[in-house]
Amino acid sequence: MPETSAIYPGSFDPITNGHVDIINRGLNVFERVIVAVLENPKKRPLFTTKERVRMIQDIFASKKEVEVRAFDGLLVDFARAQGTRVVIRGLRAISDFEYEFQMALMNRSLAPDIETFFMMPSVNYSFLSSNLVREVAGLGGSVEGLVPSSVARKLRNKVRGPHKVQIP
Amino acid sequence: MPETSAIYPGSFDPITNGHVDIINRGLNVFERVIVAVLENPKKRPLFTTKERVRMIQDIFASKKEVEVRAFDGLLVDFARAQGTRVVIRGLRAISDFEYEFQMALMNRSLAPDIETFFMMPSVNYSFLSSNLVREVAGLGGSVEGLVPSSVARKLRNKVRGPHKVQIP
Amino acid sequence: MPETSAIYPGSFDPITNGHVDIINRGLNVFERVIVAVLENPKKRPLFTTKERVRMIQDIFASKKEVEVRAFDGLLVDFARAQGTRVVIRGLRAISDFEYEFQMALMNRSLAPDIETFFMMPSVNYSFLSSNLVREVAGLGGSVEGLVPSSVARKLRNKVRGPHKVQIP
Amino acid sequence: MPETSAIYPGSFDPITNGHVDIINRGLNVFERVIVAVLENPKKRPLFTTKERVRMIQDIFASKKEVEVRAFDGLLVDFARAQGTRVVIRGLRAISDFEYEFQMALMNRSLAPDIETFFMMPSVNYSFLSSNLVREVAGLGGSVEGLVPSSVARKLRNKVRGPHKVQIP
Amino acid sequence: MPETSAIYPGSFDPITNGHVDIINRGLNVFERVIVAVLENPKKRPLFTTKERVRMIQDIFASKKEVEVRAFDGLLVDFARAQGTRVVIRGLRAISDFEYEFQMALMNRSLAPDIETFFMMPSVNYSFLSSNLVREVAGLGGSVEGLVPSSVARKLRNKVRGPHKVQIP
Amino acid sequence: MPETSAIYPGSFDPITNGHVDIINRGLNVFERVIVAVLENPKKRPLFTTKERVRMIQDIFASKKEVEVRAFDGLLVDFARAQGTRVVIRGLRAISDFEYEFQMALMNRSLAPDIETFFMMPSVNYSFLSSNLVREVAGLGGSVEGLVPSSVARKLRNKVRGPHKVQIP
Repeated sequence: MPETSAIYPGSFDPITNGHVDIINRGLNVFERVIVAVLENPKKRPLFTTKERVRMIQDIFASKKEVEVRAFDGLLVDFARAQGTRVVIRGLRAISDFEYEFQMALMNRSLAPDIETFFMMPSVNYSFLSSNLVREVAGLGGSVEGLVPSSVARKLRNKVRGPHKVQIP
Repeated sequence: MPETSAIYPGSFDPITNGHVDIINRGLNVFERVIVAVLENPKKRPLFTTKERVRMIQDIFASKKEVEVRAFDGLLVDFARAQGTRVVIRGLRAISDFEYEFQMALMNRSLAPDIETFFMMPSVNYSFLSSNLVREVAGLGGSVEGLVPSSVARKLRNKVRGPHKVQIP
Repeated sequence: MPETSAIYPGSFDPITNGHVDIINRGLNVFERVIVAVLENPKKRPLFTTKERVRMIQDIFASKKEVEVRAFDGLLVDFARAQGTRVVIRGLRAISDFEYEFQMALMNRSLAPDIETFFMMPSVNYSFLSSNLVREVAGLGGSVEGLVPSSVARKLRNKVRGPHKVQIP
Repeated sequence: MPETSAIYPGSFDPITNGHVDIINRGLNVFERVIVAVLENPKKRPLFTTKERVRMIQDIFASKKEVEVRAFDGLLVDFARAQGTRVVIRGLRAISDFEYEFQMALMNRSLAPDIETFFMMPSVNYSFLSSNLVREVAGLGGSVEGLVPSSVARKLRNKVRGPHKVQIP
Repeated sequence: MPETSAIYPGSFDPITNGHVDIINRGLNVFERVIVAVLENPKKRPLFTTKERVRMIQDIFASKKEVEVRAFDGLLVDFARAQGTRVVIRGLRAISDFEYEFQMALMNRSLAPDIETFFMMPSVNYSFLSSNLVREVAGLGGSVEGLVPSSVARKLRNKVRGPHKVQIP
Repeated sequence: MPETSAIYPGSFDPITNGHVDIINRGLNVFERVIVAVLENPKKRPLFTTKERVRMIQDIFASKKEVEVRAFDGLLVDFARAQGTRVVIRGLRAISDFEYEFQMALMNRSLAPDIETFFMMPSVNYSFLSSNLVREVAGLGGSVEGLVPSSVARKLRNKVRGPHKVQIP
């Protein structure tokens, strides 16, 4: 029986317009997209898990086909618990490609029944990453057009403080 | 409404075990996979379009969810004619990645409603290509394990003759 | 003494919007951009050298800072004959990167005084190539938005005929 | 009006012969090269901003066309404050390429009027990075030929101490 | 005089089946393979140098041609002290390729008489890294088939504790 | 028993200084290097197999450890016939990497006992290829420093004629 739902995992710290684009493209193919927010305490995210989940829920408030969940542990365990066997990931560049392939192969080794599908975001977002967005915001640059405006607002509040970062 | 069918286009000259793997993975997610065999007369394929279609049909004879069709012209036009908006492609390596992204972006530019999904074949087939299979067979090497055995047989018959090729 | 002119070499068979973008970016930095159209008879271009030169001249008819010249032979000899020591090239992707670096290093080995600068076209053209444009046109696809409209028209006339090509 | 100056930003911790090479190549094309030393306190540089600026000034003491400035904040803001619209960056390898393109696209998104030019250092420096130079020096290896000798001396003094690092 | 021994350096934190595969392939060509375990205190390895050396010794207990040594300092100095001029390294992917080439070129610059040979591990291990193995184990995933079983056991003991890590 | 000889296969049309460099590096590790010249009639080489073999023999006339042989058919069959299980190949760039890995994996699939070792040529030859050398010579450019001088001479004689080629 074919799959009707897909998991889209990530840190989403914060969600960018590139992520939003992939979720919308996923909805063209799957009935339900489960956005799985990795808790990832070791990476010391800028936004708490709760904040990250809430921001995504707000953006997709009108789309019931999008579910947002925090997760912790192995992705393949989470996928099984959700009863879905499809993982979607966006690919922007070669460096993504290698990392994503490594993760997908490891996941396949851990759980051969779970399949990873790779999607291409719009070229307009090909350079976007949460990391870069945080840096630009931290330096006082405008992130309008890079993240949903609700996220831009929260980011501005967050980085006002000791968070000075820089891009070369 | 989510998609239930996907198109898997290619030259399949001949179909390899890597292609078979991708088709089977596609069937885990989609109800129907349409294998679209590109006629491609300019590339002077080793097997005729008819032979290539027939070989794939034989391999999937027991799976009604796999349809095999020859096509000619733009892929996006063919996809629309088939009533499907999903294209699947296998990605083995970086060189694939760049070529496939270029094609997918061009297709997106021609038909924004059609989405390309990339899948990873089994690592066991990561080095396989129809081209390399033809070369090995042409030099008298064994292609068992690289292509379905029905294809291996046809390939042996085909390359007996003036077809001497070599790999460095 | 700093350079005021730069050479932009290529086959331009035909010129695309990506090329136009690079030429315009070059004009932001150099007083004069010399578009050097490679005669390249071995590659059997779709358009004659004369046609290719003319198409580019028409597009930049209003910009006197753009000169269009056919050339034949080593690029470094042509650059010296033009009295310029700067070559500009667009980089879209990794595959470009490697090829372009190889050519630039060879050119540096032949003429150490000539410097190659690499520029990034707009992301909107990151997937564009003359080759792909010819293929799409050959299959009857629309190339509006990919090439200047004068080029699109000439391309349509050219490919009406026995030129059937296909993309997988 | 064409540009006569270019900004060359980086951490320069410390400046290597590869950086020196790019600056000299830049001087073949631009009247003035502004070396912009990123303060970057978060990365905990080995040399202070002041030391890094001073080392570069010493190396180019005889070339008035080279200016060295520390900067802090967004590169595009600094470029505008300097009245220049050209950024130059060296490209050594694929990994550079992807990172540099991402930064250049982000900068273009923040300031469309600022253009990034990529240059190729001499192949002799294709493997050099400040990071690697620090590691080799930290292990007591000789960095002669990798950095200007004034830098080699300062590096030796700096790494004598608790700074033990290793390369595999 | 041709070489009869080769050094295989790394952190081996812990050794994976991919490393074991490379060592065995090395033994097909060289009489002796010296596994050189980098002490690397800055990276805060999960296993101590002693533990890492011991685990490898146990795995190759029956093969006298494998020697395991800890080292500290420049690899080229260690190689010379061992009287060997050959270094072997496994290459899995493009990202390896660039890093490894950079290190090999730096080593060649420091010691032109020492040669690096690159080998391909089995495709089954193409996605494996010590880092990923630690992460999976840290999340409670099974690492059987990824590392020798003696290592899997030690890893389970080690990560029981505060070591929670995650993969996206 | 460790190997004392290695095969270095290629088209060598013609041999470049990059190839010479790899052969010399091979001799630091192996007692004997067998240069295997692929006949490759389909690629229509510029030099006949006989000429290519002879040119290499002349260059290494004083080194008895270098044998030069033409071969035809599968490389792994040739290697076995020579009684050696080691193949060496030079890696210059990413594009090499992918192609070479594909070939090495196919060879491993055909003959698991034969191992491919990859070596890095000197950075001075990182951009060199026989193909590019032929093109430069065909356009009347100097290839001194790129190929041994005996080869440069033969190349000049060969390309005098209808062989006009061009590089962009």
